[in-house]
Amino acid sequence: MVSTVEKKLADLGVTLHTPAGPVANYVGSVLTGNLLIVSGQLCFDADSKLIAKGKLGAGVTVDEGNFAARVCAINLLSQVKAAIGNLDKVARVVRLGGFINSAPDFIDGPKVLNGASDLMVAAFGERGRHARTTIGVAALPLDAAVEVEAIFEVT
Amino acid sequence: MVSTVEKKLADLGVTLHTPAGPVANYVGSVLTGNLLIVSGQLCFDADSKLIAKGKLGAGVTVDEGNFAARVCAINLLSQVKAAIGNLDKVARVVRLGGFINSAPDFIDGPKVLNGASDLMVAAFGERGRHARTTIGVAALPLDAAVEVEAIFEVT
Amino acid sequence: MVSTVEKKLADLGVTLHTPAGPVANYVGSVLTGNLLIVSGQLCFDADSKLIAKGKLGAGVTVDEGNFAARVCAINLLSQVKAAIGNLDKVARVVRLGGFINSAPDFIDGPKVLNGASDLMVAAFGERGRHARTTIGVAALPLDAAVEVEAIFEVT
Repeated sequence: MVSTVEKKLADLGVTLHTPAGPVANYVGSVLTGNLLIVSGQLCFDADSKLIAKGKLGAGVTVDEGNFAARVCAINLLSQVKAAIGNLDKVARVVRLGGFINSAPDFIDGPKVLNGASDLMVAAFGERGRHARTTIGVAALPLDAAVEVEAIFEVT
Repeated sequence: MVSTVEKKLADLGVTLHTPAGPVANYVGSVLTGNLLIVSGQLCFDADSKLIAKGKLGAGVTVDEGNFAARVCAINLLSQVKAAIGNLDKVARVVRLGGFINSAPDFIDGPKVLNGASDLMVAAFGERGRHARTTIGVAALPLDAAVEVEAIFEVT
Repeated sequence: MVSTVEKKLADLGVTLHTPAGPVANYVGSVLTGNLLIVSGQLCFDADSKLIAKGKLGAGVTVDEGNFAARVCAINLLSQVKAAIGNLDKVARVVRLGGFINSAPDFIDGPKVLNGASDLMVAAFGERGRHARTTIGVAALPLDAAVEVEAIFEVT
Protein backbone atom coordinates (compact mmCIF):
# COMPACT_ATOMS: atom_id res chain seq x y z
CA MET A 1 0.00 0.00 0.00
CA VAL A 2 1.40 3.37 -0.99
CA SER A 3 1.49 5.88 1.85
CA THR A 4 -0.51 9.11 1.68
CA VAL A 5 2.67 11.14 1.69
CA GLU A 6 4.18 9.10 -1.11
CA LYS A 7 1.01 9.53 -3.13
CA LYS A 8 1.35 13.30 -2.74
CA LEU A 9 4.95 13.04 -3.84
CA ALA A 10 3.95 10.94 -6.86
CA ASP A 11 1.43 13.63 -7.79
CA LEU A 12 4.37 16.05 -7.79
CA GLY A 13 6.35 13.71 -10.04
CA VAL A 14 8.70 12.74 -7.22
CA THR A 15 9.81 9.13 -6.86
CA LEU A 16 11.82 7.95 -3.90
CA HIS A 17 14.65 5.51 -4.44
CA THR A 18 16.72 3.10 -2.40
CA PRO A 19 19.63 5.07 -0.98
CA ALA A 20 23.10 3.95 -1.90
CA GLY A 21 24.73 1.87 0.81
CA PRO A 22 27.18 3.61 3.13
CA VAL A 23 30.67 4.03 1.67
CA ALA A 24 32.39 4.47 5.03
CA ASN A 25 31.85 3.85 8.73
CA TYR A 26 28.64 5.79 8.99
CA VAL A 27 24.98 5.28 8.13
CA GLY A 28 22.20 7.19 6.41
CA SER A 29 20.25 7.81 9.59
CA VAL A 30 20.02 6.93 13.26
CA LEU A 31 16.81 6.61 15.25
CA THR A 32 17.12 7.71 18.89
CA GLY A 33 13.91 7.75 20.86
CA ASN A 34 11.41 9.14 18.37
CA LEU A 35 13.92 11.36 16.60
CA LEU A 36 15.35 10.25 13.29
CA ILE A 37 18.66 12.01 12.63
CA VAL A 38 19.47 11.89 8.91
CA SER A 39 22.97 12.32 7.51
CA GLY A 40 23.71 15.28 5.24
CA GLN A 41 22.49 14.49 1.73
CA LEU A 42 24.13 15.82 -1.40
CA CYS A 43 22.17 16.72 -4.54
CA PHE A 44 22.52 13.31 -6.19
CA ASP A 45 19.86 12.29 -8.66
CA ALA A 46 18.47 8.74 -8.88
CA ASP A 47 21.48 7.75 -11.01
CA SER A 48 23.89 8.96 -8.30
CA LYS A 49 24.96 11.92 -10.42
CA LEU A 50 25.24 15.36 -8.82
CA ILE A 51 22.64 17.57 -10.50
CA ALA A 52 24.55 20.75 -9.64
CA LYS A 53 28.26 21.20 -8.96
CA GLY A 54 30.18 24.31 -8.01
CA LYS A 55 29.40 27.45 -6.07
CA LEU A 56 26.39 29.68 -5.85
CA GLY A 57 27.54 33.13 -6.84
CA ALA A 58 30.24 31.67 -9.06
CA GLY A 59 28.54 29.69 -11.81
CA VAL A 60 25.54 28.03 -10.16
CA THR A 61 22.36 30.14 -10.30
CA VAL A 62 19.82 30.54 -7.51
CA ASP A 63 17.28 28.58 -9.57
CA GLU A 64 19.73 25.73 -10.08
CA GLY A 65 20.59 25.78 -6.40
CA ASN A 66 16.92 25.80 -5.42
CA PHE A 67 16.35 22.70 -7.54
CA ALA A 68 19.45 21.07 -6.08
CA ALA A 69 18.08 21.68 -2.57
CA ARG A 70 14.82 20.02 -3.63
CA VAL A 71 16.82 16.99 -4.80
CA CYS A 72 18.62 16.90 -1.43
CA ALA A 73 15.19 16.87 0.23
CA ILE A 74 14.10 13.94 -1.94
CA ASN A 75 17.22 12.09 -0.81
CA LEU A 76 16.40 12.88 2.82
CA LEU A 77 12.94 11.39 2.33
CA SER A 78 14.44 8.34 0.64
CA GLN A 79 16.57 7.85 3.75
CA VAL A 80 13.50 8.22 5.96
CA LYS A 81 11.63 5.61 3.95
CA ALA A 82 14.60 3.24 4.11
CA ALA A 83 14.73 3.72 7.89
CA ILE A 84 11.08 3.55 8.94
CA GLY A 85 9.33 2.06 5.91
CA ASN A 86 6.46 4.49 5.55
CA LEU A 87 6.56 8.28 5.36
CA ASP A 88 3.14 8.46 7.03
CA LYS A 89 4.97 7.70 10.27
CA VAL A 90 6.59 11.13 10.15
CA ALA A 91 4.93 13.21 12.87
CA ARG A 92 6.94 16.33 12.16
CA VAL A 93 9.80 17.61 10.10
CA VAL A 94 11.74 19.09 13.02
CA ARG A 95 14.74 20.76 11.43
CA LEU A 96 16.61 21.23 8.16
CA GLY A 97 20.24 22.31 8.04
CA GLY A 98 21.15 23.74 4.65
CA PHE A 99 24.73 24.07 3.48
CA ILE A 100 25.13 26.17 0.36
CA ASN A 101 28.44 25.93 -1.50
CA SER A 102 29.01 29.68 -1.74
CA ALA A 103 31.31 32.27 -3.20
CA PRO A 104 32.23 34.70 -0.38
CA ASP A 105 29.75 37.33 -1.65
CA PHE A 106 26.71 35.06 -2.09
CA ILE A 107 23.94 36.17 0.25
CA ASP A 108 20.83 34.41 -1.07
CA GLY A 109 21.20 31.06 0.66
CA PRO A 110 17.61 31.13 1.96
CA LYS A 111 16.22 31.28 -1.60
CA VAL A 112 18.25 28.18 -2.35
CA LEU A 113 17.18 26.23 0.72
CA ASN A 114 13.54 27.06 0.01
CA GLY A 115 13.71 24.28 -2.60
CA ALA A 116 14.02 21.78 0.25
CA SER A 117 11.58 23.51 2.59
CA ASP A 118 8.90 23.74 -0.08
CA LEU A 119 9.15 20.04 -0.84
CA MET A 120 8.72 19.17 2.83
CA VAL A 121 5.56 21.25 3.09
CA ALA A 122 4.26 19.88 -0.24
CA ALA A 123 4.74 16.36 1.11
CA PHE A 124 3.62 16.73 4.72
CA GLY A 125 1.49 19.87 4.89
CA GLU A 126 1.57 21.71 8.21
CA ARG A 127 3.63 19.02 9.88
CA GLY A 128 6.25 19.64 7.20
CA ARG A 129 6.97 23.14 8.55
CA HIS A 130 10.33 23.02 10.30
CA ALA A 131 13.03 24.99 12.05
CA ARG A 132 15.99 25.60 9.81
CA THR A 133 19.47 27.07 9.56
CA THR A 134 21.06 28.21 6.30
CA ILE A 135 24.76 28.87 5.93
CA GLY A 136 27.13 29.45 3.04
CA VAL A 137 30.08 27.07 3.19
CA ALA A 138 33.54 27.23 1.62
CA ALA A 139 33.42 23.76 0.09
CA LEU A 140 31.27 20.63 -0.06
CA PRO A 141 32.05 16.97 -0.73
CA LEU A 142 32.59 16.24 -4.45
CA ASP A 143 31.96 19.95 -5.16
CA ALA A 144 28.20 19.48 -4.73
CA ALA A 145 26.32 22.79 -4.89
CA VAL A 146 24.05 21.98 -1.94
CA GLU A 147 23.90 19.63 1.06
CA VAL A 148 20.94 19.33 3.44
CA GLU A 149 20.64 17.41 6.72
CA ALA A 150 17.46 16.83 8.74
CA ILE A 151 15.81 15.73 11.95
CA PHE A 152 12.37 14.10 11.84
CA GLU A 153 10.03 13.20 14.68
CA VAL A 154 8.47 9.80 13.97
CA THR A 155 5.67 7.83 15.58
CA MET B 1 3.46 38.75 35.44
CA VAL B 2 6.96 39.25 34.14
CA SER B 3 9.13 36.15 34.37
CA THR B 4 12.26 36.07 36.51
CA VAL B 5 14.42 35.59 33.46
CA GLU B 6 12.82 38.52 31.66
CA LYS B 7 13.34 40.67 34.73
CA LYS B 8 17.05 39.81 34.64
CA LEU B 9 17.12 40.68 30.95
CA ALA B 10 15.35 43.99 31.64
CA ASP B 11 17.99 44.77 34.28
CA LEU B 12 20.56 44.28 31.50
CA GLY B 13 18.62 46.64 29.24
CA VAL B 14 17.45 43.81 27.00
CA THR B 15 13.88 43.79 25.71
CA LEU B 16 12.45 40.86 23.81
CA HIS B 17 10.27 41.49 20.80
CA THR B 18 7.74 39.62 18.72
CA PRO B 19 9.71 37.77 16.05
CA ALA B 20 8.92 38.57 12.44
CA GLY B 21 6.61 36.04 10.88
CA PRO B 22 8.16 33.36 8.69
CA VAL B 23 8.97 34.51 5.15
CA ALA B 24 9.07 31.01 3.67
CA ASN B 25 7.95 27.45 4.39
CA TYR B 26 9.66 27.19 7.73
CA VAL B 27 9.06 28.35 11.28
CA GLY B 28 11.01 30.02 14.06
CA SER B 29 11.12 26.94 16.24
CA VAL B 30 9.79 23.42 16.64
CA LEU B 31 9.06 21.71 19.95
CA THR B 32 9.69 17.96 19.93
CA GLY B 33 9.32 16.22 23.28
CA ASN B 34 10.86 18.70 25.70
CA LEU B 35 13.41 20.01 23.22
CA LEU B 36 12.81 23.32 21.52
CA ILE B 37 14.82 23.54 18.30
CA VAL B 38 15.20 27.18 17.25
CA SER B 39 16.01 28.27 13.69
CA GLY B 40 19.24 30.11 13.00
CA GLN B 41 18.84 33.76 13.94
CA LEU B 42 20.64 36.60 12.19
CA CYS B 43 21.82 39.74 14.01
CA PHE B 44 18.66 41.75 13.33
CA ASP B 45 17.81 44.50 15.78
CA ALA B 46 14.23 45.25 16.92
CA ASP B 47 13.68 47.26 13.70
CA SER B 48 14.67 44.25 11.55
CA LYS B 49 17.91 45.92 10.54
CA LEU B 50 21.16 43.92 10.60
CA ILE B 51 23.41 45.49 13.20
CA ALA B 52 26.55 44.12 11.56
CA LYS B 53 27.13 43.14 7.95
CA GLY B 54 30.20 41.68 6.30
CA LYS B 55 33.02 39.45 7.42
CA LEU B 56 35.03 39.16 10.55
CA GLY B 57 38.65 39.65 9.56
CA ALA B 58 37.63 41.86 6.65
CA GLY B 59 35.90 44.92 8.03
CA VAL B 60 33.89 43.69 11.02
CA THR B 61 35.83 43.80 14.30
CA VAL B 62 35.74 41.18 17.05
CA ASP B 63 33.91 43.62 19.32
CA GLU B 64 31.30 44.31 16.65
CA GLY B 65 30.93 40.58 16.05
CA ASN B 66 30.62 39.87 19.76
CA PHE B 67 27.79 42.38 20.01
CA ALA B 68 26.16 40.91 16.89
CA ALA B 69 26.25 37.46 18.53
CA ARG B 70 24.56 38.94 21.61
CA VAL B 71 21.82 40.31 19.35
CA CYS B 72 21.40 36.88 17.76
CA ALA B 73 20.98 35.49 21.27
CA ILE B 74 18.30 38.06 22.05
CA ASN B 75 16.49 36.94 18.89
CA LEU B 76 16.77 33.31 19.97
CA LEU B 77 15.16 34.22 23.31
CA SER B 78 12.43 36.16 21.51
CA GLN B 79 11.68 32.98 19.55
CA VAL B 80 11.60 30.95 22.77
CA LYS B 81 9.17 33.40 24.35
CA ALA B 82 6.97 33.30 21.24
CA ALA B 83 6.97 29.50 21.38
CA ILE B 84 6.47 28.73 25.07
CA GLY B 85 5.27 32.04 26.53
CA ASN B 86 7.57 32.30 29.52
CA LEU B 87 11.35 32.03 29.64
CA ASP B 88 11.15 30.59 33.16
CA LYS B 89 10.08 27.34 31.50
CA VAL B 90 13.58 26.93 30.08
CA ALA B 91 15.20 24.12 32.05
CA ARG B 92 18.49 24.31 30.22
CA VAL B 93 20.19 26.00 27.32
CA VAL B 94 21.41 22.79 25.67
CA ARG B 95 23.42 23.95 22.69
CA LEU B 96 24.40 26.99 20.64
CA GLY B 97 25.68 26.73 17.09
CA GLY B 98 27.56 29.85 16.06
CA PHE B 99 28.24 30.71 12.44
CA ILE B 100 30.73 33.53 11.98
CA ASN B 101 30.92 35.16 8.54
CA SER B 102 34.68 34.92 8.19
CA ALA B 103 37.56 35.88 5.99
CA PRO B 104 39.67 32.75 5.41
CA ASP B 105 42.29 33.85 7.96
CA PHE B 106 39.93 34.78 10.81
CA ILE B 107 40.58 32.53 13.81
CA ASP B 108 38.84 34.27 16.71
CA GLY B 109 35.32 32.91 16.23
CA PRO B 110 35.02 31.86 19.89
CA LYS B 111 35.54 35.47 21.05
CA VAL B 112 32.67 36.45 18.78
CA LEU B 113 30.30 33.72 19.92
CA ASN B 114 31.01 34.59 23.56
CA GLY B 115 28.59 37.48 23.04
CA ALA B 116 25.77 34.95 22.74
CA SER B 117 27.07 32.59 25.43
CA ASP B 118 27.48 35.40 27.95
CA LEU B 119 23.91 36.58 27.42
CA MET B 120 22.57 33.07 28.02
CA VAL B 121 24.41 32.80 31.33
CA ALA B 122 23.40 36.34 32.32
CA ALA B 123 19.77 35.40 31.70
CA PHE B 124 19.64 31.85 33.06
CA GLY B 125 22.61 31.47 35.40
CA GLU B 126 24.03 27.96 35.67
CA ARG B 127 21.25 26.48 33.54
CA GLY B 128 22.36 28.86 30.79
CA ARG B 129 25.69 27.05 30.38
CA HIS B 130 25.56 25.11 27.14
CA ALA B 131 27.43 22.95 24.69
CA ARG B 132 28.48 24.89 21.64
CA THR B 133 30.16 24.71 18.26
CA THR B 134 31.80 27.69 16.55
CA ILE B 135 32.69 27.70 12.87
CA GLY B 136 33.75 30.34 10.36
CA VAL B 137 31.54 30.26 7.28
CA ALA B 138 32.09 31.56 3.76
CA ALA B 139 28.82 33.50 3.55
CA LEU B 140 25.63 34.19 5.48
CA PRO B 141 22.13 35.23 4.42
CA LEU B 142 21.90 38.97 3.61
CA ASP B 143 25.63 39.28 4.43
CA ALA B 144 24.90 39.16 8.17
CA ALA B 145 28.09 39.04 10.23
CA VAL B 146 26.79 36.37 12.63
CA GLU B 147 24.09 33.70 12.82
CA VAL B 148 23.33 31.59 15.89
CA GLU B 149 21.02 28.59 16.30
CA ALA B 150 20.02 26.89 19.55
CA ILE B 151 18.43 23.97 21.32
CA PHE B 152 16.64 24.50 24.64
CA GLU B 153 15.25 21.96 27.10
CA VAL B 154 11.90 23.18 28.38
CA THR B 155 9.59 22.03 31.14
CA MET C 1 37.64 -1.20 36.55
CA VAL C 2 38.49 -0.20 33.02
CA SER C 3 35.51 -0.20 30.69
CA THR C 4 35.33 -2.54 27.73
CA VAL C 5 35.36 0.38 25.35
CA GLU C 6 38.40 1.93 27.01
CA LYS C 7 40.18 -1.42 26.83
CA LYS C 8 39.54 -1.49 23.08
CA LEU C 9 40.87 2.04 22.83
CA ALA C 10 43.96 1.10 24.84
CA ASP C 11 44.56 -1.79 22.43
CA LEU C 12 44.56 0.84 19.67
CA GLY C 13 47.07 2.93 21.60
CA VAL C 14 44.46 5.57 22.45
CA THR C 15 44.43 7.11 25.91
CA LEU C 16 41.68 9.44 27.03
CA HIS C 17 42.55 12.49 29.05
CA THR C 18 40.81 14.97 31.32
CA PRO C 19 39.41 17.71 29.09
CA ALA C 20 40.62 21.22 29.71
CA GLY C 21 38.16 23.26 31.76
CA PRO C 22 35.87 25.64 29.89
CA VAL C 23 37.49 28.95 28.94
CA ALA C 24 34.21 30.82 28.49
CA ASN C 25 30.54 30.61 29.43
CA TYR C 26 29.96 27.20 27.91
CA VAL C 27 30.65 23.59 28.82
CA GLY C 28 32.05 20.52 27.15
CA SER C 29 28.74 18.70 26.99
CA VAL C 30 25.13 18.81 28.12
CA LEU C 31 22.98 15.80 28.95
CA THR C 32 19.31 16.22 28.05
CA GLY C 33 17.15 13.15 28.51
CA ASN C 34 19.40 10.34 27.32
CA LEU C 35 21.15 12.46 24.70
CA LEU C 36 24.60 13.79 25.40
CA ILE C 37 25.33 16.81 23.21
CA VAL C 38 29.07 17.40 23.00
CA SER C 39 30.64 20.74 22.04
CA GLY C 40 32.72 20.96 18.88
CA GLN C 41 36.20 19.62 19.58
CA LEU C 42 39.34 20.88 17.87
CA CYS C 43 42.27 18.63 17.02
CA PHE C 44 44.19 19.28 20.25
CA ASP C 45 46.57 16.59 21.43
CA ALA C 46 46.96 15.61 25.10
CA ASP C 47 49.33 18.58 25.57
CA SER C 48 46.67 21.02 24.26
CA LYS C 49 48.63 21.58 21.07
CA LEU C 50 46.82 21.56 17.73
CA ILE C 51 48.17 18.62 15.75
CA ALA C 52 47.19 20.19 12.42
CA LYS C 53 46.70 23.86 11.56
CA GLY C 54 45.63 25.45 8.31
CA LYS C 55 43.45 24.43 5.42
CA LEU C 56 42.89 21.19 3.59
CA GLY C 57 43.70 21.86 -0.03
CA ALA C 58 46.19 24.55 0.94
CA GLY C 59 48.97 22.94 2.93
CA VAL C 60 47.26 20.27 5.06
CA THR C 61 47.09 16.86 3.34
CA VAL C 62 44.14 14.46 3.43
CA ASP C 63 46.18 12.04 5.56
CA GLU C 64 47.03 14.79 8.05
CA GLY C 65 43.39 15.87 8.13
CA ASN C 66 42.22 12.29 8.64
CA PHE C 67 44.52 11.95 11.63
CA ALA C 68 43.35 15.32 12.96
CA ALA C 69 39.74 14.11 12.75
CA ARG C 70 40.72 11.02 14.72
CA VAL C 71 42.21 13.27 17.38
CA CYS C 72 38.97 15.29 17.49
CA ALA C 73 37.13 12.01 18.05
CA ILE C 74 39.44 11.12 20.94
CA ASN C 75 38.63 14.51 22.46
CA LEU C 76 34.90 13.84 22.01
CA LEU C 77 35.29 10.55 23.88
CA SER C 78 37.29 12.29 26.61
CA GLN C 79 34.34 14.67 27.02
CA VAL C 80 31.94 11.71 27.18
CA LYS C 81 34.02 10.05 29.87
CA ALA C 82 34.19 13.29 31.86
CA ALA C 83 30.41 13.60 31.60
CA ILE C 84 29.16 10.06 32.28
CA GLY C 85 32.19 8.33 33.79
CA ASN C 86 32.22 5.16 31.71
CA LEU C 87 32.14 4.81 27.94
CA ASP C 88 30.28 1.51 28.28
CA LYS C 89 27.20 3.60 29.02
CA VAL C 90 27.17 4.82 25.41
CA ALA C 91 24.21 3.10 23.74
CA ARG C 92 24.83 4.67 20.35
CA VAL C 93 26.94 7.22 18.60
CA VAL C 94 24.04 9.14 17.07
CA ARG C 95 25.69 11.81 14.95
CA LEU C 96 29.00 13.41 14.04
CA GLY C 97 29.23 16.86 12.52
CA GLY C 98 32.57 17.38 10.78
CA PHE C 99 33.92 20.82 9.93
CA ILE C 100 36.90 20.75 7.61
CA ASN C 101 38.96 23.95 7.32
CA SER C 102 38.96 24.04 3.53
CA ALA C 103 40.35 25.92 0.58
CA PRO C 104 37.44 26.72 -1.76
CA ASP C 105 38.36 23.87 -4.13
CA PHE C 106 38.81 21.11 -1.54
CA ILE C 107 36.24 18.37 -2.14
CA ASP C 108 37.52 15.42 -0.10
CA GLY C 109 36.03 16.30 3.28
CA PRO C 110 34.53 12.83 3.73
CA LYS C 111 37.99 11.19 3.53
CA VAL C 112 39.08 13.53 6.31
CA LEU C 113 36.09 12.89 8.56
CA ASN C 114 36.55 9.14 8.14
CA GLY C 115 39.34 9.50 10.71
CA ALA C 116 36.68 10.28 13.33
CA SER C 117 34.11 7.80 12.06
CA ASP C 118 36.60 4.94 11.99
CA LEU C 119 37.63 5.58 15.58
CA MET C 120 34.00 5.49 16.73
CA VAL C 121 33.43 2.13 15.08
CA ALA C 122 36.76 0.79 16.38
CA ALA C 123 35.70 1.77 19.89
CA PHE C 124 32.00 0.85 19.89
CA GLY C 125 31.52 -1.64 17.04
CA GLU C 126 28.07 -1.55 15.43
CA ARG C 127 26.73 0.92 17.95
CA GLY C 128 29.48 3.27 16.84
CA ARG C 129 27.94 3.67 13.38
CA HIS C 130 26.40 7.11 13.18
CA ALA C 131 24.68 9.67 11.01
CA ARG C 132 27.02 12.39 9.90
CA THR C 133 27.36 15.63 7.99
CA THR C 134 30.61 16.85 6.45
CA ILE C 135 31.13 20.42 5.32
CA GLY C 136 34.11 22.52 4.28
CA VAL C 137 34.29 25.74 6.29
CA ALA C 138 36.05 29.03 5.61
CA ALA C 139 37.81 29.24 8.96
CA LEU C 140 38.07 27.46 12.32
CA PRO C 141 39.03 28.64 15.80
CA LEU C 142 42.82 29.01 16.22
CA ASP C 143 43.22 27.90 12.58
CA ALA C 144 42.61 24.26 13.55
CA ALA C 145 42.43 22.01 10.48
CA VAL C 146 39.42 20.04 11.75
CA GLU C 147 36.59 20.38 14.29
CA VAL C 148 34.08 17.62 15.10
CA GLU C 149 30.93 17.76 17.25
CA ALA C 150 28.79 14.81 18.33
CA ILE C 151 25.58 13.51 19.83
CA PHE C 152 25.60 10.29 21.86
CA GLU C 153 22.71 8.26 23.24
CA VAL C 154 23.57 7.09 26.73
CA THR C 155 21.97 4.64 29.15
